[in-house]
Amino acid sequence: MVFAADAPLRLDCGARIEAPRIAYRTWGALNAGRSNAILICHALTGDQHVAGRHPATGRPGWWTSLVGPGLPIDPDRHFIVCSNVVGGCMGSTGPSSPGPSGAAWGLSFPMITIADMVRAQAMLVESLGIERLLAVVGGSMGAMQALQWAADYPGRVGASVVIAGAARHSAQNIAFHEVGRQAIMADPNWRGGDYAALGVRPEKGLAVARMAAHITYLSQGALQRKFGRQLQRDGLSWGFDADFQVESYLRHQGASFVDRFDANSYLYITRAMDYFDLAASQPGGLAAAFAGAREVCFCIFSFTSDWLYPTPESRAVVRALNAAGARVSFLEIDTDKGHDAFLLDEPVLRAALGGFLDSAAQAPAPR
Amino acid sequence: MVFAADAPLRLDCGARIEAPRIAYRTWGALNAGRSNAILICHALTGDQHVAGRHPATGRPGWWTSLVGPGLPIDPDRHFIVCSNVVGGCMGSTGPSSPGPSGAAWGLSFPMITIADMVRAQAMLVESLGIERLLAVVGGSMGAMQALQWAADYPGRVGASVVIAGAARHSAQNIAFHEVGRQAIMADPNWRGGDYAALGVRPEKGLAVARMAAHITYLSQGALQRKFGRQLQRDGLSWGFDADFQVESYLRHQGASFVDRFDANSYLYITRAMDYFDLAASQPGGLAAAFAGAREVCFCIFSFTSDWLYPTPESRAVVRALNAAGARVSFLEIDTDKGHDAFLLDEPVLRAALGGFLDSAAQAPAPR
Repeated sequence: MVFAADAPLRLDCGARIEAPRIAYRTWGALNAGRSNAILICHALTGDQHVAGRHPATGRPGWWTSLVGPGLPIDPDRHFIVCSNVVGGCMGSTGPSSPGPSGAAWGLSFPMITIADMVRAQAMLVESLGIERLLAVVGGSMGAMQALQWAADYPGRVGASVVIAGAARHSAQNIAFHEVGRQAIMADPNWRGGDYAALGVRPEKGLAVARMAAHITYLSQGALQRKFGRQLQRDGLSWGFDADFQVESYLRHQGASFVDRFDANSYLYITRAMDYFDLAASQPGGLAAAFAGAREVCFCIFSFTSDWLYPTPESRAVVRALNAAGARVSFLEIDTDKGHDAFLLDEPVLRAALGGFLDSAAQAPAPR
Repeated sequence: MVFAADAPLRLDCGARIEAPRIAYRTWGALNAGRSNAILICHALTGDQHVAGRHPATGRPGWWTSLVGPGLPIDPDRHFIVCSNVVGGCMGSTGPSSPGPSGAAWGLSFPMITIADMVRAQAMLVESLGIERLLAVVGGSMGAMQALQWAADYPGRVGASVVIAGAARHSAQNIAFHEVGRQAIMADPNWRGGDYAALGVRPEKGLAVARMAAHITYLSQGALQRKFGRQLQRDGLSWGFDADFQVESYLRHQGASFVDRFDANSYLYITRAMDYFDLAASQPGGLAAAFAGAREVCFCIFSFTSDWLYPTPESRAVVRALNAAGARVSFLEIDTDKGHDAFLLDEPVLRAALGGFLDSAAQAPAPR
């Protein structure tokens, strides 16, 4: 489904998108009290297809470990909403959608931020008749949005679930994103962002960007456990073919990604993440960003082997929330699966999230 | 200087290089007993210019923290030798040097290994009249060579100094190298490796490869300390220019690298590192590789924040050496500087290396 707003979307950069379109999906039904809505926020390369079949890939939704009947986010009990972020490429207004001239925006698309994504979601949520969300839930970039929701719309969020996230992008995170952007922009088929009009796509550059990023989603230990130095064939090729299974795996990650993702969206969304720093505009630091969020129940999860958003980043959020007097639970989950653990079957995450959402549903609405 | 061998270099892949040329430099003088020679082995993008001025960049040599008068490796006391590895691009035979046809080898250059690099060094060392090296010293890929020397020529090595290294390349290390190779090969100027004949160079791809690799040489903490989220200018650009200082730094690393390094050499040398696994050809595992090296004094260094060759990799080497009955010292140095610490001013490394080499010089030669 697509929500076509009849109001412009104001952006942090000062520009505005006149008639934004927000592609979204829902599961379950809104109850009579309109109190059972959960908004799921997707990560960098995610989309609105949380559950069910993905229309482009035919594969299952990206969060079937947590979303589905009998799971913590349950269409039999919750009204579940997930939208493609503004700047994305799965139906929401982004650099690949038609701009004012009718042609794809390309690099004339305005720069977006995490707060802009959240502002667009707030318009969608309002249009669905939801005054207050039971919870906003997200992992990775979705976690950033869950924090931004609590900071910007505390009265409209009962609970904020922040999985494998951070309140700002670190220097190393910016560095890895910059490598990906340079790989895309080095591809001659990128054509200054105007590839769509020319009928080409910077597939090689985008694949390299994905390969570099994918390493950061896993842990050293998980890579060693899954692949080690195992070869594709008997013996070495003595060449530059994929000799090792880990090479073949990475090449596959790159090749399959370009079939489903737009290179300019990758540039814009990574930039939005790099720009993310909830404390930046607050003289009082991060705690001040949450000054209005005392009634929001926060649940923060980190994973021991996540080196992209390591536990100290989550602890910094928890400290700020404590300083702001907010209600916060924090759980560091022991796993070797790295950042990607938030997408995988993690029984401890599933159980803890289920318990948290159940208690959030029982909590009285703010006075 | 260039050593032009009059014998072929046999390679692990089965091929041979008929008349290999090995570019090298020396400092100091061989003593009357020919017992004061130290061979330094360089890392992936290093070369023979350990000290003095680099002829291409005009900058100081790459190991002035450890090599120089009054330093642990001292031209007033030692005869210091460092050669460009076979496969390199600073004067030794490699993919950019003339092949049998007279044109640059390009991808017709045979695949090389760490053992091949060491075999070429052994030919050079013999030509210099050195029967037994006081020590072989190396960091990173140089550390791999120091281990290989001890395994392959134990009678010709008094001491092996292994800094920030490993006895095999891990899955994550292979993965990062593969990203770099794919970035190079995605550059249309790479032309299947024949760029030299066509007067072009895959500079953009090589720069992306360097940028990705450079992140792995630093630590999360050092990047945050040096750059954090500091901007290049006042305020964000709201575009894809280098907004953050860490982006500008990385772009500079990429741009300056392509001026001094050959893309095909990068492919071949990363492949040699990926293929490195000292235990692979030994039914008895890593300890068996060192079975003949009981008389070699080993000194193994690791750095706490090195996530490219983390301490457990060094500990695995130490355990194998212990199992082989070899003489081994091990020191993990506490620093936040990451893998690059081996190139930087590290007082603990300097002091410990100095003490170790002094005692190695006192040790009796094997019976």
